[in-house]
Amino acid sequence: MKLSKNNLHEHQHRLYDAIIVGGGAGGLSAALYLQRYNLSCLVIEKGKGRSFWMQDLRNYLGLHENTPGRELLRHGQERVVDLGADHLRGFVEQVTDEGDTFSVRVKVGKTNSIYPTFRAKYIVAASGLIDHLPQLENMQNVFDYAGYTLHVCMICDGYEMNNKPCGLFVNSEKNINSAFVMNWFTPYISVFTHGLCEVGEEMRNKLKEHGYPLYEQPIKKFLGHNHELSGVELEDGTVVDLETGLVAMGSQHHSHYLSELDLQWKGGNLITDSMCRTSHPRIFALGDLKEGLNQVSIAVADGTLAATAIWRDIRRASPPRKWEENLAQSTVEPVGVVS
Amino acid sequence: MKLSKNNLHEHQHRLYDAIIVGGGAGGLSAALYLQRYNLSCLVIEKGKGRSFWMQDLRNYLGLHENTPGRELLRHGQERVVDLGADHLRGFVEQVTDEGDTFSVRVKVGKTNSIYPTFRAKYIVAASGLIDHLPQLENMQNVFDYAGYTLHVCMICDGYEMNNKPCGLFVNSEKNINSAFVMNWFTPYISVFTHGLCEVGEEMRNKLKEHGYPLYEQPIKKFLGHNHELSGVELEDGTVVDLETGLVAMGSQHHSHYLSELDLQWKGGNLITDSMCRTSHPRIFALGDLKEGLNQVSIAVADGTLAATAIWRDIRRASPPRKWEENLAQSTVEPVGVVS
Repeated sequence: MKLSKNNLHEHQHRLYDAIIVGGGAGGLSAALYLQRYNLSCLVIEKGKGRSFWMQDLRNYLGLHENTPGRELLRHGQERVVDLGADHLRGFVEQVTDEGDTFSVRVKVGKTNSIYPTFRAKYIVAASGLIDHLPQLENMQNVFDYAGYTLHVCMICDGYEMNNKPCGLFVNSEKNINSAFVMNWFTPYISVFTHGLCEVGEEMRNKLKEHGYPLYEQPIKKFLGHNHELSGVELEDGTVVDLETGLVAMGSQHHSHYLSELDLQWKGGNLITDSMCRTSHPRIFALGDLKEGLNQVSIAVADGTLAATAIWRDIRRASPPRKWEENLAQSTVEPVGVVS
Repeated sequence: MKLSKNNLHEHQHRLYDAIIVGGGAGGLSAALYLQRYNLSCLVIEKGKGRSFWMQDLRNYLGLHENTPGRELLRHGQERVVDLGADHLRGFVEQVTDEGDTFSVRVKVGKTNSIYPTFRAKYIVAASGLIDHLPQLENMQNVFDYAGYTLHVCMICDGYEMNNKPCGLFVNSEKNINSAFVMNWFTPYISVFTHGLCEVGEEMRNKLKEHGYPLYEQPIKKFLGHNHELSGVELEDGTVVDLETGLVAMGSQHHSHYLSELDLQWKGGNLITDSMCRTSHPRIFALGDLKEGLNQVSIAVADGTLAATAIWRDIRRASPPRKWEENLAQSTVEPVGVVS
């Protein structure tokens, strides 16, 4: 059921099979499988993760090409609640290992917050990441284009940039290297540092050799209308015409709640085995939080894997269910021809 | 485009980036990604694979719970053809390694067959498997229930069997062990060997201890109506009441076309790395054909991985695309503030 401030108290005394931190594609897929394995789970979703911002989810088989990410999330949330999962809008602050169980402290409500604690046998960390965007005085101007024609994932949306004049927005010299991958899709690349980093001679020469101009002034605003980017205006008034853009300014993993636990990381990603199990046998990590491609299809498969591994663990540790009626009449043959 | 006997001749002279053997969930996901990476591909689909038979695809995030497998396939096929993929209904007979390319011989048409050959740089083996079903004189009687209430995958459909009287249909003693996993979902299990195998004393005792009757007579027919199983009638007239069933009679991988190639197998499954690459650097294997869970979500993710690996290979071997206009006017600053 959907939990909220009003009804969550009784659920604090329940021991869930799994608590899933993150209600994106990975977390919802895990919940779908866990519920269909007759296991109990609580999904805790802070809202507005990466898939929420996707306006057109075009590379996930089965969806109409204009399906926005938030529609996948809405539908998935409805499905898992129908199947008996609990779902809470809240921010997971800390997961504590209590031995055989975990306790999960959550902040619920932005104002008059309460801090309930839930308990589970397993943790599924599916809290993903959020992309850094150019910080402008008027952030609405950024949100007007981000996820529409200003993309954050080349694998997802390179195709939409094919042969279009494209801005590459970076915050470090290292991230400029995305230009030399993006040119698979378009050679009409202009690089914008937004005044955030120095660019060395070697990189300047490389850009020059490829014909990709470099703009180092801070951005004043994105230009366009109806979510269609038409260019960028810089602080000094320069206008650069663009039709699309890629933001390559890195991202922030949402994983602070795991800080008390001794897990193996590689950069911001959790290291997992082929079933998405971390170095802790009862903590799994999915999708963007683990190593690998940051794709909806991968996160959904990861949910399948983690839920199946949890089911196998719990099932193998449970006594077998027998057909008691047949055992009771052990001297009588069950109905039918039985040998 | 959709290829057929009438229009396929000109495509025989084309060198595709990839030929995908199998148009199930994995193959279509690979095609979707390849096309969005601006790579060319041909999907060759023999028809009626495992996902075609699923009546309700209930564990793939994003689909309505009553979506049949064939609807996912139909929609995916339409998507990839819209994106420029070629699609051919045919049976792949042989893949031959020609060094830098592969040739793929296909049988097209059940009558008046023709045997065209297509060529590609990469092969994506996504041809999956088909489940063995009980062979009855009237196979339509089996098809009336298979994929509806007579299931072939416990991970997919165990939930639908919860606490129902369930038949387990096997063709070997080993497969009877599925009963001791299926009892997670229901303890009301009756085992049917259809007269196909001997059952040893140890297994008989184990079944007796669990209260699961064993029926060794051949099956005469499945009973029920409107795809809802109500029982089984055996050759000797015995009727056993059931509401659902699981067929655990093994399966046949469709992989004969790879027989000339020296690939690493584990049983009927191809061994692959984390990007679904087989022991041949330009052959990938997806979904049910490789080791791992046989789930739609896994196949779809595998398509993502294989296509991405192929794109990386081809992209890295290609010359970079430069912004030629900017190079031509090398002594003139491009428009805007450029450093």
